[in-house]
Amino acid sequence: MEKREEENRPDFKKCDNLLPVIAQDVATGEVLMMAYMNEEAYDETLKTGRAVYFSRSRNKLWRKGEESGNVQLVKATFIDCDLDTLLIKVEQIGGAACHEGYKSCFFREVTEDGLKTHGERVFDPKEVYKK
Amino acid sequence: MEKREEENRPDFKKCDNLLPVIAQDVATGEVLMMAYMNEEAYDETLKTGRAVYFSRSRNKLWRKGEESGNVQLVKATFIDCDLDTLLIKVEQIGGAACHEGYKSCFFREVTEDGLKTHGERVFDPKEVYKK
Repeated sequence: MEKREEENRPDFKKCDNLLPVIAQDVATGEVLMMAYMNEEAYDETLKTGRAVYFSRSRNKLWRKGEESGNVQLVKATFIDCDLDTLLIKVEQIGGAACHEGYKSCFFREVTEDGLKTHGERVFDPKEVYKK
Repeated sequence: MEKREEENRPDFKKCDNLLPVIAQDVATGEVLMMAYMNEEAYDETLKTGRAVYFSRSRNKLWRKGEESGNVQLVKATFIDCDLDTLLIKVEQIGGAACHEGYKSCFFREVTEDGLKTHGERVFDPKEVYKK
């Protein structure tokens, strides 16, 4: 049983304990963001059902939405063929995953004429992230 | 103009010249895979309209589908708020992105009872990747 458990887990050694995680809107299929989980973040995510990442810039656990209230409720978790990337299907509370106020972090398209913004801001970052 | 061009490009320095790239089926929204592009792969992708990645294990450009024929035609490219992750919307020729023969690399769900496989193999890897 112990061995079987191990085989079902991401290969944290392979990715230097930083697993790339894609968050996708469970209802619309829109890709919201990509971030990283270390083993602690992964275990807390599975246990609580809320997305917990590891912030590389702040070097600590990042409980998504702890400041903005825009938590992600994890509805399903998928792992890739190499056991080193996750895809989580989430319900995005507040309607926006991006700290810029857009639903998705991928709100700009690369075009021949430069970057083109898609969609509208759901919230004003200045209001949400008060200093 | 030079400066403007720079601002519209991914920040390759930030990610040590390895940009995470999410490939999503343009028609269904299914997330197919995640891989990496270095600057050369990125430029070739934009120029040719076919997904070119950088293989970390083989340490060279990986023209997706060069062996299997399952190329990815890039229909749109999005960049995230931090300019360090890409989302490409692709038409997956051959119907399968994963070297295991599944449409998506994320064909296994993490459940309390272990990993649960979703979907069927589109092709037999042994047939496609002949040694």
